[in-house]
Amino acid sequence: MEGFAHINNYLDTHLDKSINELSRLVAQPSVSAQNWGLPECADLVADMLHARGFDIQIMTTDGAPVVFAERSGRSDRTMLIYNHYDVQPPEPLDLWDSPPFEPSLRDGKLYGRGVADDKGPIVSRLLAIDALLEQDGELPCNIKFIIEGEEETSSVHLHDFVEQNQELLAADACIWEFGGVDHRETPMQYLGLRGICYVELSVETAKVDTHSGTGGSIFPNAAWRLVWALRSLKGSDGRIRIPGFYDPVIQPSPRDRQYMAALPEVADEFKERFGVKYFLKGLTGGVDLRIAEVFEPTCTICGLTSGYQGPGSKTVLPARASAKVDFRLVPDQHPLEILDQLRIHLDNQGFDDVQIEYLGGEPPARTDPDDPFVKLVVETAEPVYSRPMQIVPMVGGSGPSYLFVHLLKLPVVTAGPGYPGSLAHAPNENLRLDLYLKHAKHMVHILKAFGEA
Amino acid sequence: MEGFAHINNYLDTHLDKSINELSRLVAQPSVSAQNWGLPECADLVADMLHARGFDIQIMTTDGAPVVFAERSGRSDRTMLIYNHYDVQPPEPLDLWDSPPFEPSLRDGKLYGRGVADDKGPIVSRLLAIDALLEQDGELPCNIKFIIEGEEETSSVHLHDFVEQNQELLAADACIWEFGGVDHRETPMQYLGLRGICYVELSVETAKVDTHSGTGGSIFPNAAWRLVWALRSLKGSDGRIRIPGFYDPVIQPSPRDRQYMAALPEVADEFKERFGVKYFLKGLTGGVDLRIAEVFEPTCTICGLTSGYQGPGSKTVLPARASAKVDFRLVPDQHPLEILDQLRIHLDNQGFDDVQIEYLGGEPPARTDPDDPFVKLVVETAEPVYSRPMQIVPMVGGSGPSYLFVHLLKLPVVTAGPGYPGSLAHAPNENLRLDLYLKHAKHMVHILKAFGEA
Repeated sequence: MEGFAHINNYLDTHLDKSINELSRLVAQPSVSAQNWGLPECADLVADMLHARGFDIQIMTTDGAPVVFAERSGRSDRTMLIYNHYDVQPPEPLDLWDSPPFEPSLRDGKLYGRGVADDKGPIVSRLLAIDALLEQDGELPCNIKFIIEGEEETSSVHLHDFVEQNQELLAADACIWEFGGVDHRETPMQYLGLRGICYVELSVETAKVDTHSGTGGSIFPNAAWRLVWALRSLKGSDGRIRIPGFYDPVIQPSPRDRQYMAALPEVADEFKERFGVKYFLKGLTGGVDLRIAEVFEPTCTICGLTSGYQGPGSKTVLPARASAKVDFRLVPDQHPLEILDQLRIHLDNQGFDDVQIEYLGGEPPARTDPDDPFVKLVVETAEPVYSRPMQIVPMVGGSGPSYLFVHLLKLPVVTAGPGYPGSLAHAPNENLRLDLYLKHAKHMVHILKAFGEA
Repeated sequence: MEGFAHINNYLDTHLDKSINELSRLVAQPSVSAQNWGLPECADLVADMLHARGFDIQIMTTDGAPVVFAERSGRSDRTMLIYNHYDVQPPEPLDLWDSPPFEPSLRDGKLYGRGVADDKGPIVSRLLAIDALLEQDGELPCNIKFIIEGEEETSSVHLHDFVEQNQELLAADACIWEFGGVDHRETPMQYLGLRGICYVELSVETAKVDTHSGTGGSIFPNAAWRLVWALRSLKGSDGRIRIPGFYDPVIQPSPRDRQYMAALPEVADEFKERFGVKYFLKGLTGGVDLRIAEVFEPTCTICGLTSGYQGPGSKTVLPARASAKVDFRLVPDQHPLEILDQLRIHLDNQGFDDVQIEYLGGEPPARTDPDDPFVKLVVETAEPVYSRPMQIVPMVGGSGPSYLFVHLLKLPVVTAGPGYPGSLAHAPNENLRLDLYLKHAKHMVHILKAFGEA
């Protein structure tokens, strides 16, 4: 482990410089939902990779550019690393303690939009590469980076990109964009992601808003139409009412239940962290809560808007109303099938006036816990975190991992600097520097072991 | 009619000056829903009345001040004139062709927020008073003005004000704040107003918005709670489901149906003016549409807000959601009874997490079409409009007329410069100058006939 002592020393002494580099990246806004700063951020990421001797391609898509980078190494084996440089919208701005695009270091944490999701992982991986190059003058294996700019808007153009560039992206294994420890500081190995189907539903019942005193009893009301249409999707029992929706759902296996049972309790943590007062379907905690969290498909209203929303009262009958809705999907559901089922259902329920705009989606995907690469990543975590990673067969979030699992046919593992308080997607998103450093160390171990295997 | 020829000449030659005075009043914003400019506007209105020799009292309430003004006249009889100086919010600003608080004269119409509702009626009544004073040096009857500043927010404090000032407000008859012609240019006599109960429903399910990937299947979602609670109030059949809601409803009498049958068709006009594609409950037009419009109580969603409402997608599970809802009430419903029924209903349906904020209300009220004062107003319209007014037993809008009808025990009539294209409550609110002048002339006739009766 002599080589590691040297490398660890390098990482420890280069942390500040790496955080400065991360801060520059975070200061460049890159909000895909608002089409804000994406090419500029892609250029910045490409420059950072180029500085490490990677061959760079900034590849255009019908949306944000994709940064592809590759550098060969000692072994024939190739590692594909997937990240994204785009971030969630910073709103609501007034809930941030420091401005979202002015990274701020407080109490061992860096605050800013994107520090955790996903710019921190990018730059800590570059720190690991710096250390490997400093020690050996070369990489232990071939490394390819694919860093996209639309992950936070459902990676709309990544499917075509991966399909058209399968040769370029060919590899033996893949490290996913995120990962981290849970509330016990145990590193977690997330092996499945739910899919997603994100839509905007909208209704227009007139060309102008009207006076509620005139139209209240005789004019159609866009807000009511929307409420009734939404209610037809899911009742207060939580059951999704779209015919066929649950048909492809594969229930968790006894082995999945075993893995889920080994995980720690989350009920109290959820209640405390989010201020959630109770859980749905009478769940109170335990393995059933954890299984429901990740193995069930969902239908979530993410936003509602119609008519007058200011202070006080305005007696208006709205001409327009819309809702943002996301469906989280589990194997073997598919977003395009859900989209078809949704249209048919709304039509059958009398809501052919409700328009559906597809804002993006991706199918679910899982990696086999018995894959040797999974074992490698789990075991190399031990010297860094003083314990092995714990396997989680499925998580609640989504990402385009099916492209890597099903199209590129790679085992996909997670590793990263995340922790439960990172507030990804919320105000005061933050990154713990100690975990940032640990992730860089873990990456060094993974790449060395992978190159030597 | 010699006196009238002289007066008509005065009115014709003083129209421009009066419109200038109205423009000054419109240029003073007075948005009660946004608590914007109310005392300033009250002062301006008081100055205008003081200039006509009225004794003025600017009377405080727990909300906007009330302007009370009185001047005695030749006869013992007293006319009470009710108006309001507040206006609707000007939003959405980008749909105005000229700024809402910069009155603009185009094609014989004055454009601006409040020109029609209700500043135009105020100043045209002052023009009528100017003409009477110029001719006779005195008023034909005692005149009292009550001009409030919260009509557009359900006149929350007017009930207490009228109750506490019944002696001050004592009169023999009352002229309401609005009135006008329909699309045939026939002056209309509106003798009933629906009541209103305006509430904001809100739900909070967590202390922060959460990631929809984490909570989608296990956390309560404020937007869903709101949708389900709203759906429990009214189904897509349009029937309001709050137990007891319809119990006090008095159906229109055969005589009401007669009056309603005499009114012109409105179906095509509604479709063209508002771009409404169809009417509710299978209605297509005729007397049934007109009766449904005004004799049925309503439950209207005026606004919805929750979660992410910006462009694109954001995968958030909202902690908060709210809706603005107005109920239009018919005799003998009462807003406070509706409020009680609503709370009980939501609790019984499992929605005790839905908070109700009462934003104001007033009961419905009707004046008897056989009242002699109604006859006077209808007949005096004929020389001005070249036809008598047409009686409408009930209209769809609301106002605090029950205070005048039931507490002060006055016959309440409508007269004014309104017309169907005035866009009250919408962008490009406007006032036709020809109707403004006719209303001033009608007011002269009413006050003279009333003083001589």
